[in-house]
Amino acid sequence: MTESVTVAVDAMGGDHGPQVTVPAALHSLAHDPQLNVVLVGLREPIEHELRIHRQQVGERLRICHASEVVGMDESPALAMRNKKDSSMRIAIDLVKQGEAGACVSAGNTGALMATARFVLKMLPGIERPAIASELPTMRGSTVMLDLGANVDCTPEHLLQFGIMGSVLVSALERCEVPSVGLLNIGEEEIKGNETVKLAAELLRASGLNFYGNIEGDDIYRGTTDVVVCDGFVGNVALKTSEGLAKMVSTMLREEFSRNALTRLAGVVALPVLNAFKHRVDPRRYNGATLLGLRGVVIKSHGGADRFSFEQAIGRAVREVRSQVLQRIGEKMETVHKHAA
Amino acid sequence: MTESVTVAVDAMGGDHGPQVTVPAALHSLAHDPQLNVVLVGLREPIEHELRIHRQQVGERLRICHASEVVGMDESPALAMRNKKDSSMRIAIDLVKQGEAGACVSAGNTGALMATARFVLKMLPGIERPAIASELPTMRGSTVMLDLGANVDCTPEHLLQFGIMGSVLVSALERCEVPSVGLLNIGEEEIKGNETVKLAAELLRASGLNFYGNIEGDDIYRGTTDVVVCDGFVGNVALKTSEGLAKMVSTMLREEFSRNALTRLAGVVALPVLNAFKHRVDPRRYNGATLLGLRGVVIKSHGGADRFSFEQAIGRAVREVRSQVLQRIGEKMETVHKHAA
Repeated sequence: MTESVTVAVDAMGGDHGPQVTVPAALHSLAHDPQLNVVLVGLREPIEHELRIHRQQVGERLRICHASEVVGMDESPALAMRNKKDSSMRIAIDLVKQGEAGACVSAGNTGALMATARFVLKMLPGIERPAIASELPTMRGSTVMLDLGANVDCTPEHLLQFGIMGSVLVSALERCEVPSVGLLNIGEEEIKGNETVKLAAELLRASGLNFYGNIEGDDIYRGTTDVVVCDGFVGNVALKTSEGLAKMVSTMLREEFSRNALTRLAGVVALPVLNAFKHRVDPRRYNGATLLGLRGVVIKSHGGADRFSFEQAIGRAVREVRSQVLQRIGEKMETVHKHAA
Repeated sequence: MTESVTVAVDAMGGDHGPQVTVPAALHSLAHDPQLNVVLVGLREPIEHELRIHRQQVGERLRICHASEVVGMDESPALAMRNKKDSSMRIAIDLVKQGEAGACVSAGNTGALMATARFVLKMLPGIERPAIASELPTMRGSTVMLDLGANVDCTPEHLLQFGIMGSVLVSALERCEVPSVGLLNIGEEEIKGNETVKLAAELLRASGLNFYGNIEGDDIYRGTTDVVVCDGFVGNVALKTSEGLAKMVSTMLREEFSRNALTRLAGVVALPVLNAFKHRVDPRRYNGATLLGLRGVVIKSHGGADRFSFEQAIGRAVREVRSQVLQRIGEKMETVHKHAA
């Protein structure tokens, strides 16, 4: 039997707020009979959305009023210090208090990370949280971390990212020993900086299924199940990919709308183009995990639509059901024994 | 009148050697009556290729015999030390001696960089060479550097990359004051590491047209004419892009060859897909500049085909004709005056 899970949804976060978060939560509830949702935020706009969808609160759907909203461009430090009744903060508090198994927010990443770290604290043995996300590859998907939480990482941090990423993949995909790659550069004379070289040694000695160094093109080739890098490099790689994907889709659209003939070709090719689009649709991969905290916290893309935010809720549910946090704790112990 | 330029071509470099480099050189000669080429390498295979194309040496085409070849996976340090009669080394020597205005090689990047630096030395005021390349963007193209020559950069190095990139763009594209962006990450709480923060200050005070920090997606958006980053980040961003582009094209091909109906759609859409492909064709952008040396050295992709290698030769010619090196020297003086 599937385990019952409660997810706290920061209903106010993201570019669209309740207009997206509420219908996404309703969809998730309809698809998962063992799911409970707490919508956290300003009661009025949330209830307004519920009315639009002819839904009301009940056993599986609650509203938890929070009087403040963290702005998308607000300083994380100030938001954390001053907005103690924000929807984001209350959603995290619910996880801390054990009233929810996970929380999901499409709000300000920095504020979410700072607040979650402050409220939930880190798992034993983990010094820094990391942002982990699933990316599509030629062979399926890979989990990459860190995607921007840490700009300066020590070799030990990179090792911890490797452990957490490995546990995440094995828990979610029931792949027993995921391969872990360390993102590096390919020029022969300079195989990475000192940090990366030392991290490779630690990973090699960790007992993880360490593949070795990989290069940027290995990410989408799907060479390894997990890709480890510092947050600066990871963030640049991710954003560069987003930019390239945007350029490709814009140019494809431009070429197909050049004249009557190309538009006709576009109509003929539409089913194929849609099938292609589906395979690389970033919305399917929405929901980055803030890994390393004593609680499951999922960050949705700020511009997420209903479908996209629903994926983030689904990710939260899967991480709770597959006991990712407990597994990370257990793995940390094994690795320390292995290293000792 | 167009200036006459002599290019030394490392005929042995790359995955295909003379089979690609010789026809590419012949094509370049046919298209540019003011171009002279010295084919450097093993005389026999070069002459064999010339015979296949019914061409022979003459006033504009010479062969310079070199008895050794640097392997693609050879250690750069060993190649530099031990192979003093390699095609790569002799091609660079020709630039040093003033017998060629530039050299082009599709060989081992590390060996090319190490040898070029050893033979040619750095331009005054430049401490580190950088690998610069042109990338397609939504608005046209941008020049990004460093793409892998330096894994650990100081703020001063990044400033020098900004100066060199700016000069390269203004010289080649006759754009007077190119905008320069510093690649950084977008999370609000952590606007980059210390190096990047200090580099931003230096760039702001340099008198260059400094746009400020940019993120990964700004590269293909074409936000700035020049993108500055350290070699680790640049290399990962570039290779990640290559991997994503490969995945996209593979998946498009797969979807169009799924069944008879999709194949028919593919035939109808072919002219449009080709137009699209042309716009993002990486072959058109082949030829990275090793910037900062006292000589024009162009690195072609190792797997370059004839068309692609020809673009690299063309880039060498344009850089000589637009006096990129002299301009960098002049710019370094202005910036130092500006800072003083």
